[in-house]
Amino acid sequence: MKAVVLEHQGLINIREVPDVPAPGPGELRIAPHTVGICGSDVHYYTHGRIGQFVVKAPMILGHEAAGTVLEVGPGVTDFKPGDRVAMEPGIPDMTSRASRMGMYNVDPAVRFFATPPVDGCLCEQVIHPAAFTYKLPDSMSFGEGALLEPLSVGMHSATKAGIKPGDIAVVAGSGTVGILTAASALAAGAAKVYVSDVSDVKLDIVSQIPGVVPVDLKKEDLVEKVKDETGGWGADVVFECSGAEKSFETILEVGAPGNTTVFVGMPVDKVPFDVVAAQARETTIMTIFRYRNVYQKAIDLVAAGKLDLKPFITKTYAMDDSIAAFKRVEEVHPEDVKIQITVDQQ
Amino acid sequence: MKAVVLEHQGLINIREVPDVPAPGPGELRIAPHTVGICGSDVHYYTHGRIGQFVVKAPMILGHEAAGTVLEVGPGVTDFKPGDRVAMEPGIPDMTSRASRMGMYNVDPAVRFFATPPVDGCLCEQVIHPAAFTYKLPDSMSFGEGALLEPLSVGMHSATKAGIKPGDIAVVAGSGTVGILTAASALAAGAAKVYVSDVSDVKLDIVSQIPGVVPVDLKKEDLVEKVKDETGGWGADVVFECSGAEKSFETILEVGAPGNTTVFVGMPVDKVPFDVVAAQARETTIMTIFRYRNVYQKAIDLVAAGKLDLKPFITKTYAMDDSIAAFKRVEEVHPEDVKIQITVDQQ
Amino acid sequence: MKAVVLEHQGLINIREVPDVPAPGPGELRIAPHTVGICGSDVHYYTHGRIGQFVVKAPMILGHEAAGTVLEVGPGVTDFKPGDRVAMEPGIPDMTSRASRMGMYNVDPAVRFFATPPVDGCLCEQVIHPAAFTYKLPDSMSFGEGALLEPLSVGMHSATKAGIKPGDIAVVAGSGTVGILTAASALAAGAAKVYVSDVSDVKLDIVSQIPGVVPVDLKKEDLVEKVKDETGGWGADVVFECSGAEKSFETILEVGAPGNTTVFVGMPVDKVPFDVVAAQARETTIMTIFRYRNVYQKAIDLVAAGKLDLKPFITKTYAMDDSIAAFKRVEEVHPEDVKIQITVDQQ
Amino acid sequence: MKAVVLEHQGLINIREVPDVPAPGPGELRIAPHTVGICGSDVHYYTHGRIGQFVVKAPMILGHEAAGTVLEVGPGVTDFKPGDRVAMEPGIPDMTSRASRMGMYNVDPAVRFFATPPVDGCLCEQVIHPAAFTYKLPDSMSFGEGALLEPLSVGMHSATKAGIKPGDIAVVAGSGTVGILTAASALAAGAAKVYVSDVSDVKLDIVSQIPGVVPVDLKKEDLVEKVKDETGGWGADVVFECSGAEKSFETILEVGAPGNTTVFVGMPVDKVPFDVVAAQARETTIMTIFRYRNVYQKAIDLVAAGKLDLKPFITKTYAMDDSIAAFKRVEEVHPEDVKIQITVDQQ
Repeated sequence: MKAVVLEHQGLINIREVPDVPAPGPGELRIAPHTVGICGSDVHYYTHGRIGQFVVKAPMILGHEAAGTVLEVGPGVTDFKPGDRVAMEPGIPDMTSRASRMGMYNVDPAVRFFATPPVDGCLCEQVIHPAAFTYKLPDSMSFGEGALLEPLSVGMHSATKAGIKPGDIAVVAGSGTVGILTAASALAAGAAKVYVSDVSDVKLDIVSQIPGVVPVDLKKEDLVEKVKDETGGWGADVVFECSGAEKSFETILEVGAPGNTTVFVGMPVDKVPFDVVAAQARETTIMTIFRYRNVYQKAIDLVAAGKLDLKPFITKTYAMDDSIAAFKRVEEVHPEDVKIQITVDQQ
Repeated sequence: MKAVVLEHQGLINIREVPDVPAPGPGELRIAPHTVGICGSDVHYYTHGRIGQFVVKAPMILGHEAAGTVLEVGPGVTDFKPGDRVAMEPGIPDMTSRASRMGMYNVDPAVRFFATPPVDGCLCEQVIHPAAFTYKLPDSMSFGEGALLEPLSVGMHSATKAGIKPGDIAVVAGSGTVGILTAASALAAGAAKVYVSDVSDVKLDIVSQIPGVVPVDLKKEDLVEKVKDETGGWGADVVFECSGAEKSFETILEVGAPGNTTVFVGMPVDKVPFDVVAAQARETTIMTIFRYRNVYQKAIDLVAAGKLDLKPFITKTYAMDDSIAAFKRVEEVHPEDVKIQITVDQQ
Repeated sequence: MKAVVLEHQGLINIREVPDVPAPGPGELRIAPHTVGICGSDVHYYTHGRIGQFVVKAPMILGHEAAGTVLEVGPGVTDFKPGDRVAMEPGIPDMTSRASRMGMYNVDPAVRFFATPPVDGCLCEQVIHPAAFTYKLPDSMSFGEGALLEPLSVGMHSATKAGIKPGDIAVVAGSGTVGILTAASALAAGAAKVYVSDVSDVKLDIVSQIPGVVPVDLKKEDLVEKVKDETGGWGADVVFECSGAEKSFETILEVGAPGNTTVFVGMPVDKVPFDVVAAQARETTIMTIFRYRNVYQKAIDLVAAGKLDLKPFITKTYAMDDSIAAFKRVEEVHPEDVKIQITVDQQ
Repeated sequence: MKAVVLEHQGLINIREVPDVPAPGPGELRIAPHTVGICGSDVHYYTHGRIGQFVVKAPMILGHEAAGTVLEVGPGVTDFKPGDRVAMEPGIPDMTSRASRMGMYNVDPAVRFFATPPVDGCLCEQVIHPAAFTYKLPDSMSFGEGALLEPLSVGMHSATKAGIKPGDIAVVAGSGTVGILTAASALAAGAAKVYVSDVSDVKLDIVSQIPGVVPVDLKKEDLVEKVKDETGGWGADVVFECSGAEKSFETILEVGAPGNTTVFVGMPVDKVPFDVVAAQARETTIMTIFRYRNVYQKAIDLVAAGKLDLKPFITKTYAMDDSIAAFKRVEEVHPEDVKIQITVDQQ
């Protein structure tokens, strides 16, 4: 079958790879239809590694995917060939201690699409466990289905934050994750979300979500603005999505007494942390690693019209143009939210 | 000043009563503009008592009110004459053990408008603490402001339920509280709310809320329908708002494993409770007494357009027609959601 | 190998059964050493069924067991032959929706020792997953290890109750589960636990736990006593462990504002539930089905000397005397807390 | 009356001050008996300020106190002259937004004993609200009663951490707060608490608490030791009580997946924070500001024998020797846990 293969740092080939085997018990054989490109895919391409994960052998790229069930393995009763589905890309050891406690996302043994040495799903067929596969309603496109993966980070963040209906939220950073977190926070009951960034283009995009108040950091002070507009109280929930050291310098001052601040963005180095500022408000800080148990809930929100993902699919490339797609993401265009690739259907 | 006074069971007079004193420290003098009629007001009128609370002396009726600040007492800095406001009608002893723990609504010493022997607010002026008064944005009418009181029961229920974004909810009972709870659950992040009732008129009304799936109990089985439409899983959160014994007979079967079921409705007698059905799913049951800390959040949701209260104000009477308004509520018209009275402005 | 087999209702044989196979991947072959007798074992013996679970074929009894690892299956690295261990008797489908959410105990597909048609562990050897097996420290006897199973119900109850340090607790019912729940609540931080019963013998036993205040229901009123001794406030956490309808009639009145009441006991029929009494305090009701993620924590508490299980092992029988042991439990002696059987070691 | 007065930075006088007035509504007149010295008292003495709080006028010192009720104000029914009591030293505005939400400790308007310009309680008489006064059982000494104040920081930390029975805990730092936090964590259900420090004397003291495992940072690595002894899992709850920058460098690595880490210690400057280390485990970070709603619970634990405070009262001075007592604390003797002063009783 055909696949988009990262041969080694700097070289992607679109070429034949061996076919997948038949699905085992509890597994599905799935034909990916649309696969989104994530910054991590590009990073493996340009740097050959992310932290401890090093590309030592050719690896199929891609982990944000939706497609069609081709075959069901023994014991699978919930799916049938032809079902349109999205795939949750991390497959944990469900018997691990973390998984038994309900935190399968932090199980260290998780196998994740396109994280060396595990192959990704930017190819014609994959084998995937039914337990981590979700049916798409007819009203959702494959592109929206593939977008569930980055959305899930926002959904998990909004869920862990324990947003109460009517809360005032802040999202620092209007990149893809920031945008999807803002959308999730609003779907989760926030009355209003202040989203801060320095990019006019990004702020324009995020402002299309009803309930978002853009904060242009070139002109406005986030802490002052939120305090002013909440009678001095501050935000009930805060999401740091930029990962920028500069953001951490003040992020602990924007929350109200008893606020929850969620660290979503991943800074490269340690950041300065103002313990006393957090203590003065008894801030609770939640941290996020991928997501768990949110795919079905995201699907239900999209199906109900409470989350509109369409505006965030910027451009779609054919599989044969995958290298151009990766280059596009590498170039960093602020007007791009999500670039996707459609796989040739057999 | 003029007031709507319940002289004793069965007799309401609209008559002069003594003026209110000047506001003390932390207090406001407020002119109520719109006052909603609650079932409890009517019950005092028709029965002269609710449980232990007995009308032994003439009492001004009404506890759902919005109006205008006339004068601020010493030490009040957040309000000024002319501010349009809603009043939270229960005034707890904030130094009580329950209040110190953050549960001021269950403080037994709470003084509540129009709960004997405390006068209500269906009159030209009241004194009210600034701490339980909330400014209305220009976009909210006094009628919507008065509707915040019954809405708060739904908001408190939705908040305590800990709704996660994308949850599937059930509301049993489509009376005023059921409708406002369904609206609150959707504002709180539920993807969909199944609302059950036997009244076609009530189901028609609640169906106007986007996200509501009406369940006509004359034709459909609530448990079966929800199970069918959730792949056998059940509802993530359940609100019992009818208070009907019949509803309690099956309500514990509609929830999913780990669901939260909220008892909002108040049955007159003990109800049958299926302990084993709850245990099999490890259901958590929350119970609700009025509300706390939700007025500001409800205002923010209405201001943001995430909660539309206008459809639920059925009819408005002038103060002089108050008796007709009370009679109307007493007659129980299914097409009525909320009847309100406007107070003559001086 | 030798096993204690319930041939059908009313007939237990101690006889040869086929040997177990070699352990599969992730599995252990274990020689049970001590096996406690649970009311459910006796009920299958005397009635041939519990609810929907019917004994249709000979079944090995017993599910409360500790023993020694004999052999480890492929991929098991945490255990080695000779390890002394306790076994958690329920084996869920860890890929189910409930398990993925961290509630493996309410997974409907769980396979549980000695629940038809699954064999129990009152026999010379069993195969058990390493993920549900826990090492015993040298300081713990096999008898204490076997007692971890019923203790786990108390531990799970105390955990779900969210006991805060210094809470005042109530346990209604001083049977085996009541005793172990009281011990768990004290280990979990309760300052004091009021335990009510009508049996002097049972109250004498439970009174041996430091921190227990016995309440003799023949002479004292539980609600009054707790109110009196807490300045009218009530209990912070309440555990209903009797399952008796009479207990449910008043149990909702003993809790303080904002209390958590846990339904541990399993009444046969629906019980009367005073919704308004619960609402007046905004009681949260938790319900319990077996347990999850508590074996290791119970072991750590016993090893630390914070839970003393020894007083609760009343009598131990040899495997060949198993029928006498079952008869003893069937007769219901109030002085018995737990009867155990030791399996012949090869 | 006589009082210990900080005239200005560097000068304490024991001298006459004006008598207190009669208690107002809800207030008590109390004769302090024993008053502990806190680091903050000494800091005002040696530096004349703590952050924004500056000693601009003579101020009575002391905020950790127990004594005897002399007179009750109007409306007080729970107390009578002669009652032995402890005083919670912070008096919030209970009508503030934070207080209404149940977080009275983070109300910015709180008045706190011996925090400029508010006088402390190291004097013969004080006026204090009954709502923040707690009766001591006969079994508790005034010294133990005064020790409730620093204990409350540990109790609040242990409560917010949500310790589950059997949890493994870590406390970094074995100063007074670290010791009392370790004791609280054990009372709250932790099976074991690893306490780390560099001082042999401090480690000897904390080791007297059953359940404490001392970790000598001069010889052992905290992260490695805890990982080793928990099978690589890590601690379930972690309390940073040292406030030392060096401690923050590794504290986020000692927790298990899903752990809660509590920042109790107050570093002077921003500390380096390893966001990715926290995210990899989805650590929740709680922060602590004083305490709320824990005095009664601490009293109940001490009365039940579950918390032994006696070993932590190192030395007691007479009021006339107060300056020597302050000097002693200023000198920092590692063998001191708490130095207290007894007030002359009239």
